[in-house]
Amino acid sequence: MSIKTGTPKKNLMLFSGRAHPELAEEVAKHLNVSITPQSAYDFANGEIFVRFEESVRGCDAFVMQSASAPINQWIMEQLLMVDALKRASAKRITVIMPFYPYARQDKKHKGREPISARLIADLFKVAGADRIMTVDLHTAQIQGFFDGPVDHLFAQNILARYIKDNYPQQNIVVVSPDAGRTKLAEKWANDLGGVPIAFIHKTRDPLKPNEVVANRVVGEVEGKLCVVIDDMVDTGGTIAKAVRHLLDEGASDVVMAATHGVLSGPARDRLSECGAREVVFTNTLPIPDEKRFPGMTVLSIAPLLAHAIQQVFEDGSVTSLFDGDA
Amino acid sequence: MSIKTGTPKKNLMLFSGRAHPELAEEVAKHLNVSITPQSAYDFANGEIFVRFEESVRGCDAFVMQSASAPINQWIMEQLLMVDALKRASAKRITVIMPFYPYARQDKKHKGREPISARLIADLFKVAGADRIMTVDLHTAQIQGFFDGPVDHLFAQNILARYIKDNYPQQNIVVVSPDAGRTKLAEKWANDLGGVPIAFIHKTRDPLKPNEVVANRVVGEVEGKLCVVIDDMVDTGGTIAKAVRHLLDEGASDVVMAATHGVLSGPARDRLSECGAREVVFTNTLPIPDEKRFPGMTVLSIAPLLAHAIQQVFEDGSVTSLFDGDA
Amino acid sequence: MSIKTGTPKKNLMLFSGRAHPELAEEVAKHLNVSITPQSAYDFANGEIFVRFEESVRGCDAFVMQSASAPINQWIMEQLLMVDALKRASAKRITVIMPFYPYARQDKKHKGREPISARLIADLFKVAGADRIMTVDLHTAQIQGFFDGPVDHLFAQNILARYIKDNYPQQNIVVVSPDAGRTKLAEKWANDLGGVPIAFIHKTRDPLKPNEVVANRVVGEVEGKLCVVIDDMVDTGGTIAKAVRHLLDEGASDVVMAATHGVLSGPARDRLSECGAREVVFTNTLPIPDEKRFPGMTVLSIAPLLAHAIQQVFEDGSVTSLFDGDA
Amino acid sequence: MSIKTGTPKKNLMLFSGRAHPELAEEVAKHLNVSITPQSAYDFANGEIFVRFEESVRGCDAFVMQSASAPINQWIMEQLLMVDALKRASAKRITVIMPFYPYARQDKKHKGREPISARLIADLFKVAGADRIMTVDLHTAQIQGFFDGPVDHLFAQNILARYIKDNYPQQNIVVVSPDAGRTKLAEKWANDLGGVPIAFIHKTRDPLKPNEVVANRVVGEVEGKLCVVIDDMVDTGGTIAKAVRHLLDEGASDVVMAATHGVLSGPARDRLSECGAREVVFTNTLPIPDEKRFPGMTVLSIAPLLAHAIQQVFEDGSVTSLFDGDA
Amino acid sequence: MSIKTGTPKKNLMLFSGRAHPELAEEVAKHLNVSITPQSAYDFANGEIFVRFEESVRGCDAFVMQSASAPINQWIMEQLLMVDALKRASAKRITVIMPFYPYARQDKKHKGREPISARLIADLFKVAGADRIMTVDLHTAQIQGFFDGPVDHLFAQNILARYIKDNYPQQNIVVVSPDAGRTKLAEKWANDLGGVPIAFIHKTRDPLKPNEVVANRVVGEVEGKLCVVIDDMVDTGGTIAKAVRHLLDEGASDVVMAATHGVLSGPARDRLSECGAREVVFTNTLPIPDEKRFPGMTVLSIAPLLAHAIQQVFEDGSVTSLFDGDA
Amino acid sequence: MSIKTGTPKKNLMLFSGRAHPELAEEVAKHLNVSITPQSAYDFANGEIFVRFEESVRGCDAFVMQSASAPINQWIMEQLLMVDALKRASAKRITVIMPFYPYARQDKKHKGREPISARLIADLFKVAGADRIMTVDLHTAQIQGFFDGPVDHLFAQNILARYIKDNYPQQNIVVVSPDAGRTKLAEKWANDLGGVPIAFIHKTRDPLKPNEVVANRVVGEVEGKLCVVIDDMVDTGGTIAKAVRHLLDEGASDVVMAATHGVLSGPARDRLSECGAREVVFTNTLPIPDEKRFPGMTVLSIAPLLAHAIQQVFEDGSVTSLFDGDA
Repeated sequence: MSIKTGTPKKNLMLFSGRAHPELAEEVAKHLNVSITPQSAYDFANGEIFVRFEESVRGCDAFVMQSASAPINQWIMEQLLMVDALKRASAKRITVIMPFYPYARQDKKHKGREPISARLIADLFKVAGADRIMTVDLHTAQIQGFFDGPVDHLFAQNILARYIKDNYPQQNIVVVSPDAGRTKLAEKWANDLGGVPIAFIHKTRDPLKPNEVVANRVVGEVEGKLCVVIDDMVDTGGTIAKAVRHLLDEGASDVVMAATHGVLSGPARDRLSECGAREVVFTNTLPIPDEKRFPGMTVLSIAPLLAHAIQQVFEDGSVTSLFDGDA
Repeated sequence: MSIKTGTPKKNLMLFSGRAHPELAEEVAKHLNVSITPQSAYDFANGEIFVRFEESVRGCDAFVMQSASAPINQWIMEQLLMVDALKRASAKRITVIMPFYPYARQDKKHKGREPISARLIADLFKVAGADRIMTVDLHTAQIQGFFDGPVDHLFAQNILARYIKDNYPQQNIVVVSPDAGRTKLAEKWANDLGGVPIAFIHKTRDPLKPNEVVANRVVGEVEGKLCVVIDDMVDTGGTIAKAVRHLLDEGASDVVMAATHGVLSGPARDRLSECGAREVVFTNTLPIPDEKRFPGMTVLSIAPLLAHAIQQVFEDGSVTSLFDGDA
Repeated sequence: MSIKTGTPKKNLMLFSGRAHPELAEEVAKHLNVSITPQSAYDFANGEIFVRFEESVRGCDAFVMQSASAPINQWIMEQLLMVDALKRASAKRITVIMPFYPYARQDKKHKGREPISARLIADLFKVAGADRIMTVDLHTAQIQGFFDGPVDHLFAQNILARYIKDNYPQQNIVVVSPDAGRTKLAEKWANDLGGVPIAFIHKTRDPLKPNEVVANRVVGEVEGKLCVVIDDMVDTGGTIAKAVRHLLDEGASDVVMAATHGVLSGPARDRLSECGAREVVFTNTLPIPDEKRFPGMTVLSIAPLLAHAIQQVFEDGSVTSLFDGDA
Repeated sequence: MSIKTGTPKKNLMLFSGRAHPELAEEVAKHLNVSITPQSAYDFANGEIFVRFEESVRGCDAFVMQSASAPINQWIMEQLLMVDALKRASAKRITVIMPFYPYARQDKKHKGREPISARLIADLFKVAGADRIMTVDLHTAQIQGFFDGPVDHLFAQNILARYIKDNYPQQNIVVVSPDAGRTKLAEKWANDLGGVPIAFIHKTRDPLKPNEVVANRVVGEVEGKLCVVIDDMVDTGGTIAKAVRHLLDEGASDVVMAATHGVLSGPARDRLSECGAREVVFTNTLPIPDEKRFPGMTVLSIAPLLAHAIQQVFEDGSVTSLFDGDA
Repeated sequence: MSIKTGTPKKNLMLFSGRAHPELAEEVAKHLNVSITPQSAYDFANGEIFVRFEESVRGCDAFVMQSASAPINQWIMEQLLMVDALKRASAKRITVIMPFYPYARQDKKHKGREPISARLIADLFKVAGADRIMTVDLHTAQIQGFFDGPVDHLFAQNILARYIKDNYPQQNIVVVSPDAGRTKLAEKWANDLGGVPIAFIHKTRDPLKPNEVVANRVVGEVEGKLCVVIDDMVDTGGTIAKAVRHLLDEGASDVVMAATHGVLSGPARDRLSECGAREVVFTNTLPIPDEKRFPGMTVLSIAPLLAHAIQQVFEDGSVTSLFDGDA
Repeated sequence: MSIKTGTPKKNLMLFSGRAHPELAEEVAKHLNVSITPQSAYDFANGEIFVRFEESVRGCDAFVMQSASAPINQWIMEQLLMVDALKRASAKRITVIMPFYPYARQDKKHKGREPISARLIADLFKVAGADRIMTVDLHTAQIQGFFDGPVDHLFAQNILARYIKDNYPQQNIVVVSPDAGRTKLAEKWANDLGGVPIAFIHKTRDPLKPNEVVANRVVGEVEGKLCVVIDDMVDTGGTIAKAVRHLLDEGASDVVMAATHGVLSGPARDRLSECGAREVVFTNTLPIPDEKRFPGMTVLSIAPLLAHAIQQVFEDGSVTSLFDGDA
């Protein structure tokens, strides 16, 4: 009598919203766990209801949701799941956002705008998230928007390895589709073995400051295999134009690689018709069959996510997955 | 020299999301102000962008949005507007939610559910809301979910006055459509001059606990005009059944009154065909023409909102608008 | 050398304020632990002093206090205990309030009132409480006042089982003493096997709005055993009047059941003289001998609390104690 | 049209709990305002209810309460008043605690104790207090417990002036009743014109460490008028012993002065019988007639509080009231 | 009697730490105010003491400090000033950091690093800062690190205008000294009338990944006036190498422009000897005479800061100072 | 499949800033661990960079730094280490400050000063510290400045034991160098076996209030061994004067003992020349050889720190290390 003692256990439980269940299933398989069964449906007016079917008390919860369209609905569903976990006494809650929503609005481009990416971090914090896991942030500074640990995974390695394996001994130049991604291009260039880089410079008419008058390629691309890189492709307009421009400038061939295939609206048609030999994405976001076409390759991010979850659960090192860079 | 002094001014600025601009316009007219011009649109992947076109520095901001479908999108838009106002140095931010979203999920009905109505309060708090103004909460306890002032306005007065004016000298009984709204029915009964009340009791089969076997009317309704009341009508199923049941039990006529016309899916057909003589709502939520039918009356909430905003802006009394009850 | 490793242990420690030591002792016995010895006394001016006599570092602390009179003193004592535990490095602090104080002030009934039940949640949060355990809240929405897990236990099951065992094969009707408890009556009706319900409707004089002119029973009670239910009984006035009214209306017999026996002032006399055959409470609050009388039955809540504490400590399921409802 | 502008006003409103209405009335008179009318009463089980009878929207609220017995009740009442003001949209809330409760528990004297004075600061912060005004803190460090402005007023000046006026040209020594107040004695000595100081040293038996074996006066007191000073007198034991000890050691006369007359239990008798020529307090706490006796003088703190409130309201300087010391 | 009313005033008060008093004086002169007198000195062990010599109650405080060496001391001084203002009842506190310290550590470059720029924002927030004003952040995302308004001023306009005025009708190319500033170069190129851009690409040896083997200029520079731009120059190594490289590649001349002249250690020598025709900075940081040399031009940021402070004080628009971009 | 379970481990990891590596090494040796390797250096402009060389995920982190000069730099370094640990998923972070910086500014001595010691607590809290461990606080109330557990260790025991062992059977009087340390002197007097105490009273000229005209010894010192005690010695001025004054008053000999040897500027010379037979410190702060002299003794605090860390790590009792006093 007096004090009751026990030995704590820890239980990894995996949860998935309704946005991208295939990815969650794949991660679950790698981890050799099942996704925790839950009810999740919309009321007639669109309000979302969630309830977990099993006790989550004391668990180490990993909550996956991919921020695909309808993006605000899936964000809210993930927030509700976090709230339910907090109130049901989960021990630790890791929010997994393979694609961080609203990442492009990471600053005020002009006055009187929100900083939406910071708001997203705050919303998850107040709902009860202890940690965030995400992949290839639009800008790495977004890590600093969350007051807690952010495991920032790099899918670029997976993409770069694929390029190296499939385009060996090529005369490669890495091309950034605009001036803002040149630093990313430099990282790619290093990963591909010190190849040169180029970028496309949008020139504005000095008399009409908001009008782009010309795109100039800065750097050498003639006769080379251009690897156009980006973190995400949304409607594909910039990328498709870049590809065509590079071919016009004498590039021997163009391959496009990006982590997040948002692929809204005309993206499929633009990409399939722009002249690129291959476009490569990961499945951080669902890419349904109707958005795919023969020249598109989709690499799975699931092994990386599963590996990172395992490390987090076991207090291993996530940094070591990336040679110290994460 | 030394210290620079000045006299502070205060500016009321009214903002409106895209969910229910007609209501905002009507409020603006009553206040004799314009809605602050803003850019607000969706990116291709559904991410929302907002920017105010005029300086909001130091203003007393009132941010209107009606939580109609697609409800999560409009919640997010309002959150982004609040974040933008906070970062643009608005002095005070009042969030106006004529219909409080997720109000029905104000507690865990069973284990491992979220308390979504509390989450909504927390999301707006963290985004930067100083105060909330709302109308006829599903349960008044929701006021306590927000850490700050909540101006809880009562539209029931408007509805009750309409009933009194249009059904004078009637043999009225107020009917709650289920056991949970009996208290609300009692408040109506007082407003209508001490009339009797009744409610519909759902009986469950003791052997099959989740199956409703019968609805019994508790209280006297025969030969009377039944005023069926509720705070909101979503798909209209419960209400339509209640109306028919009351007519079966000998009610001479049935009128239905509720503050919030959510009116999802089959609601229009159910209400128009249920046998009620009239159904009365306010326009806290947009009720487009295709949801309306001849027996439906929609009363405007705009004068009440405008009056309350005026009181808040001028440090007057909102409580006094309701004889001390708010 | 390098890193020192260890295996964490967890220790359940039970703490009790001075309000209701008998209940704490009973819980301790069920858990097979001792209450942690502490000094707790009042200084001459009423300031409370507490100190724990044993190390609490790293413990899983469960802090019991029943909010009986002098209620503000016992709230403060429990707050001080939580502060002391936080500063002495307890690992997790669960505040056990079998009766949640100030639960009736869960909203502003009129303007310019506090929301005292929310304040209570905030006070315990800021003092250091990680979780709350409570029994039969006045309104379930109070769960949402606390930013963290609330284990909301149901004593109604214990009371309903007692009624079923002691009044079998009776012609029962469940009666709510006012319109606001009708929903609770419906839950009881289901627990007792689908019996009918009734409630007492207070009618106000339309000319003198604050004056109750009559109580009408809505529903059938003649010739039946009325089970009058409530969550708490304070001075017993409403309940005693309800009992007499039901007998006047022809009820064959009346039994009263409520979770919390606050029993202030004239409650004992009113209850013992109102004509009820039996009144049943639990011991969430201390009911000293001088408040008891022959027709009163007090059921112990201790087994339920002990069971729930055990589940919380072992990361089991509290929800499952109530067929998924908690 | 477009923006509605206005000129902000500011309104000073004074509120008083039920602990010490005479002091609040006196302050109100000095400020030429009325105390805001409010309902405040105890429910049968001791729960406190408050409601303000007038609109407080936008006001600059000053909330007075003296922490006399029953101290926890009055603390809770003041917390509830602050919560009600916050939720009713007061613009700024200043909590006035002429006697800061639990100030003696400003640190852990031993392990596993609360730091109650910090808890008090946190409770008021979470309830909604923006600022605190208090008088002669037990230790000045308590200012740092509150995350916001603390106006720390000094009543010692009032007491010292009284001593100077009534005991001129005396051979004075200031005496601290224990080692911990020696610094305070030094401040007094300066205020009285550079007079000497002494203190009473409690010696412990080295073999029985918790037992005081003797009180030694350190410093010269023979033939002098000893002014024994302290911040508060609770039961009066230490002070009465000190007075007798000083007379035994040859003091010509003893006067006692302290800011806060807690005066619990035997204090009146002890003070009136200890041999002191006069004991002087302020009325930060109520000193009812039955606690008074011929040799007791009570100076009013109301002019100082009123002056400070005025300065705070008008953004004047409180520091300047004390020659820069506050 | 009853309520005391008044008209609020607002007072702009300017405060300056000891790091860069000349800049504060210049701003004060533009604003036609005096810097608030304060005591500020170091104790023998380096602890800083500050005290304001005048009442700051209710003021609109603007607290200037330039984060020059010893940088951590000046950060701490500014934090202490903010704490003192908060506790002395300043109404609003705007922290002015012309150069945001630790801006380069705005993300984890590798695992297990701090995000120092976020920490800085949190430190000022917890000390009591309501708002931040800063100039040309290293990355604009840092705005999102602070939970509140950030007025982000652009000195680039001042620099670009200087270049345009002094190097008209030149054959200009804007050069980023590394891949990460290419976006900034594009903004400059637009400001200068749609001129071309180039950047310097550091190539790494694929076998020794951390070793830079060569710098390649990407883009056309031969025969042109290269304007090498950056947000800050610390030791000048990268910039000096870039200048020499550009001259080697045939640039006709090189001018260097950057907002923040950190100019540590060998910077003066490197810059004066690198071959640049002119180097241009602003005085966001103090540039003492010993760091200056004939080819260096220092433009004053004071008019911009003064203008922005004026707008903030008067609830004007800061955005409009930059054609909507801030 | 389904849930993945595991057994949590705990790892003690020790971290050290650059201020006092010798002390950290000594503590590490006592604990039989290594200090976690880290990079830590200053950029050219004084900004500090830190990175841990090993994974810290899930560790129980103890972060040592001694607040010696340059004190603000070392505070910032420790804050950055805490931020890095938080973001790298350390499980718990204990900040070890053997000498709590800014402890003397624990209150506003006059108006418009910061409360720097509270600010320090807030800075570490916001950076991510869960707990603080410190030694002999200047005032014990500082514990209450941190919202969390503070392990307050007492080095006085170590010093007192040293005095007892080295000056047995002496005619000892404990002397406080000013009125504010008399309470501390009383504690020493008890530790040394109930010896008498004295203190030095600074008298001010009543006409020139800020000018000390004389120091008077209050208490008996003639012919005795005076043990002058304090918590810290900075420049040594007060102490050296006190020692000389005591010798002038006939003390047979003087020994000085203090926990923290800040020893700024002229301290070494003043102490070595003041006439004290011995001065005793601990090594909470580094005391380099050039500050030492023959009559100085430095006792190690490392065993105490190591012992306390061990207790914290193992959920043992720290209080018991001090007979219940901590």
